[in-house]
Amino acid sequence: MVLTMGELARALDAQCWGDATIRVTGAAEPSAVEPAGPQGGQLAMAMAPKYADQLRPGSIAILAQGMDPAAYGLKAAIFAPRPRLVMAGLTRAFDPGPDIAPGIHPTAVIDPTAQLAEGAAVGPFVVIGADVAIGLGARIGAHASIGRGTRIGQGALIHPGVRIGHGVTAGDRLIVQPGAVIGGDGFSFVTPEESGIEEIRRTLGTRADIRQQHWTRIHSLGGVEIGDDVEIGANATIDRGTIRATRVGRGTKIDNLVMIAHNVVVGSDCLLCSQVGIAGSSVIGDRVVLAGQVGVSDNIQVGSDVIAGGATKIYSRVPAGRVILGNPAVKMETQMEIQKAMRRLPRFAQQLSKLQESVTRLLEKG
Amino acid sequence: MVLTMGELARALDAQCWGDATIRVTGAAEPSAVEPAGPQGGQLAMAMAPKYADQLRPGSIAILAQGMDPAAYGLKAAIFAPRPRLVMAGLTRAFDPGPDIAPGIHPTAVIDPTAQLAEGAAVGPFVVIGADVAIGLGARIGAHASIGRGTRIGQGALIHPGVRIGHGVTAGDRLIVQPGAVIGGDGFSFVTPEESGIEEIRRTLGTRADIRQQHWTRIHSLGGVEIGDDVEIGANATIDRGTIRATRVGRGTKIDNLVMIAHNVVVGSDCLLCSQVGIAGSSVIGDRVVLAGQVGVSDNIQVGSDVIAGGATKIYSRVPAGRVILGNPAVKMETQMEIQKAMRRLPRFAQQLSKLQESVTRLLEKG
Amino acid sequence: MVLTMGELARALDAQCWGDATIRVTGAAEPSAVEPAGPQGGQLAMAMAPKYADQLRPGSIAILAQGMDPAAYGLKAAIFAPRPRLVMAGLTRAFDPGPDIAPGIHPTAVIDPTAQLAEGAAVGPFVVIGADVAIGLGARIGAHASIGRGTRIGQGALIHPGVRIGHGVTAGDRLIVQPGAVIGGDGFSFVTPEESGIEEIRRTLGTRADIRQQHWTRIHSLGGVEIGDDVEIGANATIDRGTIRATRVGRGTKIDNLVMIAHNVVVGSDCLLCSQVGIAGSSVIGDRVVLAGQVGVSDNIQVGSDVIAGGATKIYSRVPAGRVILGNPAVKMETQMEIQKAMRRLPRFAQQLSKLQESVTRLLEKG
Repeated sequence: MVLTMGELARALDAQCWGDATIRVTGAAEPSAVEPAGPQGGQLAMAMAPKYADQLRPGSIAILAQGMDPAAYGLKAAIFAPRPRLVMAGLTRAFDPGPDIAPGIHPTAVIDPTAQLAEGAAVGPFVVIGADVAIGLGARIGAHASIGRGTRIGQGALIHPGVRIGHGVTAGDRLIVQPGAVIGGDGFSFVTPEESGIEEIRRTLGTRADIRQQHWTRIHSLGGVEIGDDVEIGANATIDRGTIRATRVGRGTKIDNLVMIAHNVVVGSDCLLCSQVGIAGSSVIGDRVVLAGQVGVSDNIQVGSDVIAGGATKIYSRVPAGRVILGNPAVKMETQMEIQKAMRRLPRFAQQLSKLQESVTRLLEKG
Repeated sequence: MVLTMGELARALDAQCWGDATIRVTGAAEPSAVEPAGPQGGQLAMAMAPKYADQLRPGSIAILAQGMDPAAYGLKAAIFAPRPRLVMAGLTRAFDPGPDIAPGIHPTAVIDPTAQLAEGAAVGPFVVIGADVAIGLGARIGAHASIGRGTRIGQGALIHPGVRIGHGVTAGDRLIVQPGAVIGGDGFSFVTPEESGIEEIRRTLGTRADIRQQHWTRIHSLGGVEIGDDVEIGANATIDRGTIRATRVGRGTKIDNLVMIAHNVVVGSDCLLCSQVGIAGSSVIGDRVVLAGQVGVSDNIQVGSDVIAGGATKIYSRVPAGRVILGNPAVKMETQMEIQKAMRRLPRFAQQLSKLQESVTRLLEKG
Repeated sequence: MVLTMGELARALDAQCWGDATIRVTGAAEPSAVEPAGPQGGQLAMAMAPKYADQLRPGSIAILAQGMDPAAYGLKAAIFAPRPRLVMAGLTRAFDPGPDIAPGIHPTAVIDPTAQLAEGAAVGPFVVIGADVAIGLGARIGAHASIGRGTRIGQGALIHPGVRIGHGVTAGDRLIVQPGAVIGGDGFSFVTPEESGIEEIRRTLGTRADIRQQHWTRIHSLGGVEIGDDVEIGANATIDRGTIRATRVGRGTKIDNLVMIAHNVVVGSDCLLCSQVGIAGSSVIGDRVVLAGQVGVSDNIQVGSDVIAGGATKIYSRVPAGRVILGNPAVKMETQMEIQKAMRRLPRFAQQLSKLQESVTRLLEKG
């Protein structure tokens, strides 16, 4: 796609400086950008002085508000009022999109009862089951499979090798990265008599009675319900519910290798970063951010607007709006104090034993 | 599948109250259940008063022992002596099963030397290698692949996109969720001279001599051996052994995104929850439960009947029967005390410095 | 493959003792090895006395330097100067290789503009996009997909079900285990106004102003660049960069279920063990070893020759050559002291309160 600087600025709702007719052929880092020629040039992402300092004279660039394009010898510049937001518009404009040809590949196996709305692009070896319904403009990559009765809204982008099971429903503009699995069976088992896990939950850790235990499977009859504008990362897994559906709210984004267990409810506009795990039946509020490798125990409530730092482990209810960190999770500021104190722990030990000596001496004297 | 209340109660080995002829069309949460009509109705899972309070009069439900169906205006009820166990039977009765049509799909590529016993259902684009043998009644989903010489018992359920390599053996009733990989190569490398890892294991953390290190691959000649009644979660990975096989014992259940490395031996009737990682050559006993995100170092022994809480990190041998928690793993009760003390750590620091002042003053006076 | 003991010793650059003409049919654990017969026999891996003690007389074995083959009644032996290095050569010699038949399977869908060099083995249902170029002797397993414009060097081994997106470049001898995803989109989003994450980074944890936040997608225009001799584990994921490429250096080995986020740069000859996660834009030096379940925050620098123990969580810059452990990461020796002190924490608490009583009494007396 080729736009002029002026057109791009308008598309980004930003201001243009200099020659607005120069054509933009793509985006790149400042050090990789050549001066713009008669065919135009690549737009340098230079939204801080340390990046702009690498610009060659004659280049075209995006700058932050307040930077001086003339000082860098630019031919044209676009000013980004909020740089990362501009990046969103810009990268969307230049994304060539995924590798899925228009039309339905002749090798695809689509059940005659499945309904694909107009404009679908379906790659080689895709398998779509009975009674599936998929909205307008879907793009489905090679080797994806979609189970019977699943319903997906408009504008879906399903990358290669995605596994969507039966009885899943998803809203509009669903994006699923390669290898993600939606609707695997829940990990739910029961022993004929009280299991060791149930025993230690009751006794808070003591095992009086260790015996044989065989695990009987609880089947997953529920599906998965996914709101509009959800994205699901590569090789992430979302299990189906036991009786009701596992749910992911509108606008929530899920990163690679995340695990969402059976019966979990995730609210809207959440961000679940890579390798997060949420155990069975837990409920996550709206606008919750869980950084990478966060873990949430089963049957836990995490309130809306909670933010959990990397590798935080959550074993109990978190009130709304709290910022937490650590294993076990505590308020971030408390965790910072704990960590400071922990680093001084070896010194504490020394101080304590010295104090003890002094006090013993004082007591003996007294 | 449709059963009457009476038939279902008998199948669950449970007691029926009220009209045993009402037909059960499925299972649902109490709030979603309509009163049963002439065609029957959905059975509400109401095994605690807080659930039963949501029942509409005229419904049919499963209740816990001792609850009064008349008080909720039910038409019929089944009493669950152990609710989760009843759930197992009930969900099995109503599970429509996976989306795999009977017979062998014409697109499947099956080596002529492979032996599939009677009743196999094989989905589109499945690939089965030479000398594979699979027992009676196997169901194999779309895009699964099974490598040469692999042997799988009766009643296998292999979901779409599963990768089973060559030389794997598995017992009866194997279940593998979508995207799981069984028999990838072990992560095993060696440097021509002592590597940094070997150095710090020898010196306990000191590096005298940092040098170049190129990693030479140790190939994995061993397979994977899996007992009867094993289930393996979505996108989980079990690597093959180096010389002997990696082993998973009878009745063990493995959740999504679990990693079992080369040469590991997992005992029988274990529960390995999501995102657990077990490093190379470690040995896990029988009936061990590892909660989500637990990690086990390489070459470690974890005794039978050990239970490890969420995100526990195990770096050294754990005796049989122990209940552990924390990073590094300690007895659960010890961890509880450590956590309590850690939260008071910042206060400790203050108390300690005050004490020091007092003692200094006392010493000066003395 | 069958070699004589003499040929194998020469191939391993090791010394042979006894009858060098005995044929070696494979490798096995000492307890599984039968005495060698006229057809030869399996070679026992007996590189320590505890293993050699299990040998049957008449066997053939690999021993460590200094062990006495006559004492074990062996017919022939090879001496391993560095046992694990010998294992590398030996397992390579006996690895039958993956299950990919020579030639291009007729079901593969290969774009006419794609260039596969000579000697390619391509399995069933493989999909290769436009303008792809793959070097000599590639082996590509069933159901793999490779996106448009991707370039891969010589001797690649791409296992079944691997997803390589468009615009990826990789050097020679690339190995990718089943289910790995290279070139998924980065997890990069922005809110129109300051998000909660940006707020707490600015305020170090305080949230003054909780508001709605919708996530706008930043598209990933960059690719992934991979050096020579890289191996990538089963179900691992490497995301593409935003503007420039995500990079993995020559000789680096990546284990199963590892996550490498957008814009990350990993140096050469690193070892990233299972379930490691590296967040966006972080830079990892050369010869870095991250043990299982290590996490690295975004925009962090980890210096060359760093070694991080299992489950270490890295939130800030790590200088080159450091050996680290813990959450948050500190020097390994410091962590060892912290852990020792932590185990004594409950006792500290008691000692501290006793001291306080004593000092109070002393102060009252004084």
